[in-house]
Amino acid sequence: MRVDHIAIAVNDVDEALENYKKFLNIDKVDVEIVPNEKVKVVMLQLEDTRIELMEPTAEDSPIKRFLVERGEGIHHVAITADDIEKDVDRATQNGLRMLGGIRTGSYGRKITFIHPKSLNGVLTEFCQSPAEGKC
Amino acid sequence: MRVDHIAIAVNDVDEALENYKKFLNIDKVDVEIVPNEKVKVVMLQLEDTRIELMEPTAEDSPIKRFLVERGEGIHHVAITADDIEKDVDRATQNGLRMLGGIRTGSYGRKITFIHPKSLNGVLTEFCQSPAEGKC
Repeated sequence: MRVDHIAIAVNDVDEALENYKKFLNIDKVDVEIVPNEKVKVVMLQLEDTRIELMEPTAEDSPIKRFLVERGEGIHHVAITADDIEKDVDRATQNGLRMLGGIRTGSYGRKITFIHPKSLNGVLTEFCQSPAEGKC
Repeated sequence: MRVDHIAIAVNDVDEALENYKKFLNIDKVDVEIVPNEKVKVVMLQLEDTRIELMEPTAEDSPIKRFLVERGEGIHHVAITADDIEKDVDRATQNGLRMLGGIRTGSYGRKITFIHPKSLNGVLTEFCQSPAEGKC
């Protein structure tokens, strides 16, 4: 299992990108609008994993609610699964609380989330890409 | 640059370890007491990075304060530097606020922190090991 990305909720993704560029040696930056989740996303590719900066694009975005309640900061951590159905079955059988079933996210990747109450306050995404590697 | 570890503040490291074992394929678990920081630490080795579970061992531990104020959750993210002096110089010149200078942590590693206000709410550790790889 790998950490695919660490997702950070921010008010302004362009301003946040400038901050992160001040210390990170970033290989590559991808910008993406995710209409389903009502966020604008910047993905910063590090050597082994990625940092995702997420800005809400609507007042009813879940990320907007997070920012209002908690302020900017880490929103979730995503773990890449090799076989997401198997891993989710195992987690569920072990009593972890999932947030909904496995669904299809952007780029055909499969995703689901583990409730933060099951993992000591950390909202954790399980994800699996249709291709090898990152999801 | 690599993410060396993601550190999570927890009330009880043994209970948290049981939770994380329910979904992670963990290769290796290291337990460590860090007297300087007044924490008991469990390091979970994933394929590419590590998850650090931290329990305070004293009422005046900074992690205890975090738990009282915020509850369990991600405390910081650590980035491995190849040349910590150079990277910290660059970050400082770019206007990032450091939390103290570079100091020696456990196992002779060099560490310092970037203030969360400089990085959109994320407390970020810079670390460099005397050996190659993880710090």
